[in-house]
Amino acid sequence: MAGTPVTVIGLGLMGRALATALMNAGHPTTVWNRTPGKAQALVEAGASQAPTVEAAVAAAPLVIVCVRDYDAVRGLLAPAEPALAGRVLVNLTSGASDEARAMAEWAAERGAEYLDGAIMMTPPGIGAPETVILYGGPPALYEAHEPALRVLGGGTTLISSDVGLPSLYDVALLGIMWSTFNGFMHGAALLGTEKIPATDFLPMATGWLRGVATFLTAYAQQIDDGAFAAEDATLETQVPPVRHLIHESRIRGVDATLAEYTEALLTEAIGRGHALDSYARVIDHFRP
Amino acid sequence: MAGTPVTVIGLGLMGRALATALMNAGHPTTVWNRTPGKAQALVEAGASQAPTVEAAVAAAPLVIVCVRDYDAVRGLLAPAEPALAGRVLVNLTSGASDEARAMAEWAAERGAEYLDGAIMMTPPGIGAPETVILYGGPPALYEAHEPALRVLGGGTTLISSDVGLPSLYDVALLGIMWSTFNGFMHGAALLGTEKIPATDFLPMATGWLRGVATFLTAYAQQIDDGAFAAEDATLETQVPPVRHLIHESRIRGVDATLAEYTEALLTEAIGRGHALDSYARVIDHFRP
Ligand SMILES: NC(=O)c1ccc[n+]([C@@H]2O[C@H](COP(=O)([O-])OP(=O)(O)OC[C@H]3O[C@@H](n4cnc5c(N)ncnc54)[C@H](OP(=O)(O)O)[C@@H]3O)[C@@H](O)[C@H]2O)c1
Ligand SMILES: NC(=O)c1ccc[n+]([C@@H]2O[C@H](COP(=O)([O-])OP(=O)(O)OC[C@H]3O[C@@H](n4cnc5c(N)ncnc54)[C@H](OP(=O)(O)O)[C@@H]3O)[C@@H](O)[C@H]2O)c1
Repeated sequence: MAGTPVTVIGLGLMGRALATALMNAGHPTTVWNRTPGKAQALVEAGASQAPTVEAAVAAAPLVIVCVRDYDAVRGLLAPAEPALAGRVLVNLTSGASDEARAMAEWAAERGAEYLDGAIMMTPPGIGAPETVILYGGPPALYEAHEPALRVLGGGTTLISSDVGLPSLYDVALLGIMWSTFNGFMHGAALLGTEKIPATDFLPMATGWLRGVATFLTAYAQQIDDGAFAAEDATLETQVPPVRHLIHESRIRGVDATLAEYTEALLTEAIGRGHALDSYARVIDHFRP
Repeated sequence: MAGTPVTVIGLGLMGRALATALMNAGHPTTVWNRTPGKAQALVEAGASQAPTVEAAVAAAPLVIVCVRDYDAVRGLLAPAEPALAGRVLVNLTSGASDEARAMAEWAAERGAEYLDGAIMMTPPGIGAPETVILYGGPPALYEAHEPALRVLGGGTTLISSDVGLPSLYDVALLGIMWSTFNGFMHGAALLGTEKIPATDFLPMATGWLRGVATFLTAYAQQIDDGAFAAEDATLETQVPPVRHLIHESRIRGVDATLAEYTEALLTEAIGRGHALDSYARVIDHFRP
C-alpha cells in the first residue's frame, strides 16, 4: 500500500528519523540535504535523492523541512521558490512563534500552504505511539495531511489554527524540562556531598515528581479561576524550608541560585499580601 | 487493640494530623501545644492533654515533636529535660542536616534516643498509604518503633543511620518541586499571553513530565558512571531552543531568569569542552 509521496528536506539526526519513519510506513520519499552524503543510507533503503532543492520540492505535494533554524529554512528554500506554489510546506524546525508566523506569510506569498510543527521528542522516538508532535495551521489543511503526519508520532495533534503556537508550547514545555533537570542536578549534587549515588536519589525523585504533578493540577485550576487560597501548603510555610535549602547548599559549596530565586518569588508574593495563598500565586511574578 | 502510648508535641496543622492518625490507629495519645486551645478537638476525640510539656514527655515512651523549627524544639523541651531520659524522641520538624545532628547530640546528652524524620506530604495526606516519611537514626531503634511510625504514612522508610540525611533529602526533593513549579508558572505565563488557559497547558505539561522522569533515569546512571556521552539531545543542540525561550519571554514581558540560568549552565559546560555530552553534565556546575 503506497502512501502519499512526501519530500523531506534536512537530513540531520531528526530529518533522517522522519524520512525513515515515512518510508517504513510506505510513503514514497524524496530527500534532500545541504551536505548530500547524509542521504546515502536513506537512498540505500529506497528513498529518492533529489539533485536540487527545487527538484525536491517539485517531487511531492507534502514537503517536510527540518533543519537547524528558520534562517536556514529560508536560505535553503530560496532557489526552490518557483516550485513552492501549490505545495504544502510542513516546517518541523524549532524556532520562536514570531518566526513561525513570518514563515507562514512568506510561504503564502509564494503560493504554498503552511503548517508549523514542534517535535517534543528526540530522533529515536520518531514513529512511536507516545511521541508528541504539536501542529498549528488551518484545520482543514491539517486534517487532509494528518494520516501522513501521524506516522511520525502517535501523539500528533493540532493545537491551534495559529502557526505560532507550536513554537510557544515547545519552549514552555522545554522550560519545565530544564527547570526540573536543574532541580534534580541541584539535589543530586547536595546528596553527592554525602556520597549518596544519584541512582539512589532517582526513585525518590521520580516518585516525588508524580506528587508534584498532582499539585500542578490544582494550581492550573487556581490560575484560571484567579482564586489562590491554600489550606495547607501556604507560601508562608514554604519560606523556612527554602531557607534550609539555601543553607544546605551554601555549607556544602553547592550553587544556591535556584533556591534563592524561589525565596525571592515567595517573599515577593508574601510582600504583596499573599502569605496564605498557594504556590500558584507566583504566576503573578511571571505575568507581564 | 491498643497500640503503644505515644505523645505528640506541637499541634499545628501537621501535629494535629499526626495525632489524629495515631488515635485512629488505636494508640493512646497524649498531646501538648504551646497554645493549649489547639488541643480541644483532639481531646474531644479521645486524646489526653498534658498540663505541662514535662508531663507530656513523661506520658509515653515514644515522643513525637513537630513544630515550626529546631529552635522551637529546643526551647519547648527545655523544661522537660528531666523527663527525657529513657524516652525515644522522634523529631518531625523540618530543618537542616546540621541542626538534626546537633539535636541528636543534645538528646543523647539527656539520655534520650533519637530519630529524625522528614514528612514529604501535606497534613491531609498523613496516614495515607502513599505518604512518604524519611527517617534517619539507629536501625534497631527505627525497627522497634516502625509499626507506630508507619501509621503516619505507608511510605515510611529508614534512609540512613545518619540523622542528618532526612533533612538533606527533604530539601533536595523540595528543590525539585519548586524548580518544576517555577518552570510550569513560566510556561503558563507565556501561554497566558496568548490567552491559553493553564488548564489547557496542564495535561501536556504533566504528560511531558513523565518523559522528563525517563531522561532523569538515564542521567542518574550517567552521573554515577561519570560517563556523559549523548547520542541525540546533546548540550549543543539545546542552545538554540533555550535562546528561543529567552526570546519568547522577553518579547512577551515574561521573566526570563530561569531560561538565562539554563543558558549559562549550557554555555559553561560547552565552554569546558562538553558540547556533545548530555544534560547530566551540568552536575559539574553544582558540585562543590
Ligand atoms: N535532535 C533532537 O532531539 C530534536 C528534538 C526536537 C526538535 N529538533 C529540531 O529539529 C531540527 C533539526 O535538528 P537535528 O537534530 O536534525 O540537527 P542536526 O543533526 O544538527 O542537523 C541539522 C540539519 O540542518 C541543516 N542545516 C543547518 N544549517 C543549514 C543551512 N544554513 N542551510 C541548509 N541546511 C542547514 C544541516 O545540514 P548539513 O547536514 O548540510 O549540515 C542538517 O541537515 C532543529 O530545529 C532541532 O531543534 C531536534
Ligand atoms: N504543613 C505542611 O505541609 C508540612 C509538610 C511537611 C513538613 N512540615 C513541617 O512540620 C512542622 C510543623 O508545621 P505545621 O504545618 O504544623 O506548622 P503550623 O501549623 O504553623 O504550626 C506550628 C507549630 O509550631 C509551634 N511553635 C512555633 N513556634 C514555637 C515555639 N517557639 N515554641 C513552641 N512551639 C512553637 C506552634 O505552636 P502554637 O500553636 O503555640 O503557635 C504550632 O504548634 C514544620 O517544621 C513544617 O516545616 C509541614
